[in-house]
Amino acid sequence: MSKPVAVTTPTARPAVDLGGFAAIVGARHVVTAPADMEPHLREARDLYQGVARAVVKPATTEEVAAVVRHARQLGLAVVPQGGNTGLVGGQIPGGDIDAIVLSLTRMDRVREIDPLTDTMTVEAGLTLLKVQELAEQADRLFPLSLASEGSCTIGGNIAANAGGTAVLAYGNTRDLVLGLEVVLADGRVWHGLNKLRKDNTGYDLKDLFVGSEGTLGIVTAAVLKLFPRPRSRAIAFCAVATPAAALDLLMLAKRQAGSALTTFELVPRIGVEFVVKHIPGARDPLSDAAPWYVLLELSSPAESGLDEIMEGLLEAAIEGGLVTDAAIAASLDQRAAFWTLREALSEVQKHEGGSIKHDVSVPVALIPQFLDEAIACVTAMVPGCRPVPFGHMGDGNIHFNVNQPAGSGDPAEKAAYLDQWDAMNAAVHAIVARHGGSISAEHGVGRLKRDLLPGFKDPVALDLMRAVKRAVDPDGLLNPGAVL
Amino acid sequence: MSKPVAVTTPTARPAVDLGGFAAIVGARHVVTAPADMEPHLREARDLYQGVARAVVKPATTEEVAAVVRHARQLGLAVVPQGGNTGLVGGQIPGGDIDAIVLSLTRMDRVREIDPLTDTMTVEAGLTLLKVQELAEQADRLFPLSLASEGSCTIGGNIAANAGGTAVLAYGNTRDLVLGLEVVLADGRVWHGLNKLRKDNTGYDLKDLFVGSEGTLGIVTAAVLKLFPRPRSRAIAFCAVATPAAALDLLMLAKRQAGSALTTFELVPRIGVEFVVKHIPGARDPLSDAAPWYVLLELSSPAESGLDEIMEGLLEAAIEGGLVTDAAIAASLDQRAAFWTLREALSEVQKHEGGSIKHDVSVPVALIPQFLDEAIACVTAMVPGCRPVPFGHMGDGNIHFNVNQPAGSGDPAEKAAYLDQWDAMNAAVHAIVARHGGSISAEHGVGRLKRDLLPGFKDPVALDLMRAVKRAVDPDGLLNPGAVL
Repeated sequence: MSKPVAVTTPTARPAVDLGGFAAIVGARHVVTAPADMEPHLREARDLYQGVARAVVKPATTEEVAAVVRHARQLGLAVVPQGGNTGLVGGQIPGGDIDAIVLSLTRMDRVREIDPLTDTMTVEAGLTLLKVQELAEQADRLFPLSLASEGSCTIGGNIAANAGGTAVLAYGNTRDLVLGLEVVLADGRVWHGLNKLRKDNTGYDLKDLFVGSEGTLGIVTAAVLKLFPRPRSRAIAFCAVATPAAALDLLMLAKRQAGSALTTFELVPRIGVEFVVKHIPGARDPLSDAAPWYVLLELSSPAESGLDEIMEGLLEAAIEGGLVTDAAIAASLDQRAAFWTLREALSEVQKHEGGSIKHDVSVPVALIPQFLDEAIACVTAMVPGCRPVPFGHMGDGNIHFNVNQPAGSGDPAEKAAYLDQWDAMNAAVHAIVARHGGSISAEHGVGRLKRDLLPGFKDPVALDLMRAVKRAVDPDGLLNPGAVL
Repeated sequence: MSKPVAVTTPTARPAVDLGGFAAIVGARHVVTAPADMEPHLREARDLYQGVARAVVKPATTEEVAAVVRHARQLGLAVVPQGGNTGLVGGQIPGGDIDAIVLSLTRMDRVREIDPLTDTMTVEAGLTLLKVQELAEQADRLFPLSLASEGSCTIGGNIAANAGGTAVLAYGNTRDLVLGLEVVLADGRVWHGLNKLRKDNTGYDLKDLFVGSEGTLGIVTAAVLKLFPRPRSRAIAFCAVATPAAALDLLMLAKRQAGSALTTFELVPRIGVEFVVKHIPGARDPLSDAAPWYVLLELSSPAESGLDEIMEGLLEAAIEGGLVTDAAIAASLDQRAAFWTLREALSEVQKHEGGSIKHDVSVPVALIPQFLDEAIACVTAMVPGCRPVPFGHMGDGNIHFNVNQPAGSGDPAEKAAYLDQWDAMNAAVHAIVARHGGSISAEHGVGRLKRDLLPGFKDPVALDLMRAVKRAVDPDGLLNPGAVL
């Protein structure tokens, strides 16, 4: 399923009196027993096993600030953590640093919901699912949506600038945040819980913290944008012959549906086969197999009108030869079934042996070319390997995952395949770079891709990032070893 | 029309050999004759008369970088300038600094239009109008739209994070920019012309430069987002009794029209009267006078469907008592006439004596309360003064302009009125601050509001801004005296 665990060896360290943390947050919120720390130190894909002095769980912004100040006094680094669902190890302290994990999960209050301003002010530890539900209760939409939404926190989403399946219409997390409250490395608090749509009084500090993966400050609360709740939806599962045809379909859908186009996800044939094979009850809604599929959804706050747009769109797409076959969901159950064909793709790959992952993006127009080259490249590297490239085509973001060749299930075979992780990454990332793309479209840098950055990022950009880090966290207290 | 000119007195300075600039950009692109420099040193509202050693006009990014390096050698500050349309003096060197103006107007090439990726890569000196036209020729929309679009440059728009009339649906300039090319204070170039919708490989440098008003770097080129071109529009001019009714109408319009709602502008009765009085051919489209109006536009890339949405919306609004009367434009001419009632508002105020300006925002829900308090406040300060608050209600951004009492046209009366500029600003800004608002919603800080910032901005935010400035431009070479 994954690259072998990066075992980190803690060096022997002098004891430190952690009593000061207990005085701030209460003794039962300073976790030091290895078994209790484990859920905070092991990462979902088992890529990282971290080491920490303690997991400290403050409940208020003031407590977070006090914990940061106290850690500074003790000479301990601070690694902020939300739901521990990040995929690049950004939330896991490596053995090379002497750190505490600062868990935000107890900061889970809703501070305000203001439906007239279309904002919601929440603390960092609320799960994304809870945020979505609260928005819905206020007859609004908070559009951020991703696989781990039941356990990831909004603070983690902000730290990672999470993407997901609604980016095409609503943008990344940074586009959904108006203001922030942030505890800085010196323990001061930036009170930036701005509810304004427009504020040109100086530098954009909000976006400096969004996506900085806890290395510049600790997000304790945020003002989120709310949107009108969709009242109608139309969803189609479309067969296309090639990614190039999918690209043409994307252009047509944008032209005909405009901002009603909220989902445009690419799925390869093998992905559908994996889902049908491993998910009970899942089935292919189309009678004939096709090499590629597009999950295309329209939504609108209006009560009606989408069905006509969808029918007109598919008619034009079939006439123009872009779509070879399509099914429109006629019920909520069918809609859910279509979504399963996309959302189960990560899960089902686990049943097909090792999978080498790439979270990459290229300019939208170059996706067909990128896929051609990347598929040819990995197939040449590992004959018989099974590329399962899927994802957010409308955003130029493909999860280029490659399963090992179909085989015996022999663990040695799997291990041998996964040994090629770094080499395959290097080859695919080189193609990405040639197309002006990004080697981390939505998962971030964390610890997983930190050492890759200098090979891909403009050196001036890296210098600017280092200068900003030094300016805001001169002693490197916050999440050292991540990003930079 | 304006606050009296801030006369800046240049101190006597030793001569500097400017020949090095001529060697870089060519002698005729180094302007030193006072009459030729004048258009670059006098600002549109006559608030600032600047002083510069020269206006230097490079034509390429390399030339910009060389000019910056040479200015550094000479110990001269660099004030970047686009179309010189900024309203806060950010583009005008004050007499307190020894500077050149670096004009970007010769950098006006289109580097690429990529309709499949929906991006356009242009140099900083292109006018906004030209950018709009190029997008339209590619059957796309670049939505940024503002009064000075014929002469302002896209680089200036980016430096100022310009707002305008399309923010409600498309966001501010920062939301319309994907990537940047920036010359830094040390003469290096950040090559960040990213065409990606998703890229989480580090800090968000793009948004650090957008809105930094030339104090952190000089934007030489940008990747802009393109959108589907609207193929249908529906526009209504609606009478409402109060701003509170306008707010209810906004909520209704969002709910019923969703992202098709692209304009929601508030206009007071006196504004309509001024336009009708001073703009030949302008007329009030409604038979009875109303205290307030909303210009409400829907647009969509679909060919049809908006008329029904607009009719349903107005029907519900009239039934609900939100709208007392409304006219829907039946032709392009009528649409233009409706827009004149909004777009001419700044212009017509010049014919009504002195006008004291505020470019402010508050959370959308607080606009009615803000207007009540601010109108009462200025009326108490200057009995008989005529508030003309108008603008981007959907974004919470009101141009709270206050004309002097109707009078004789006596220049002394006008001068006496304008003497109250700072006092009125202080009083209105205090109300803005009490409502969690911004004292510069879309025009920026520049030199006009720099000294006001410390009174309104969170001190930690100011410290962070200073730290970033020191990190990126440690010697204060770029636009000193602006923003910070």
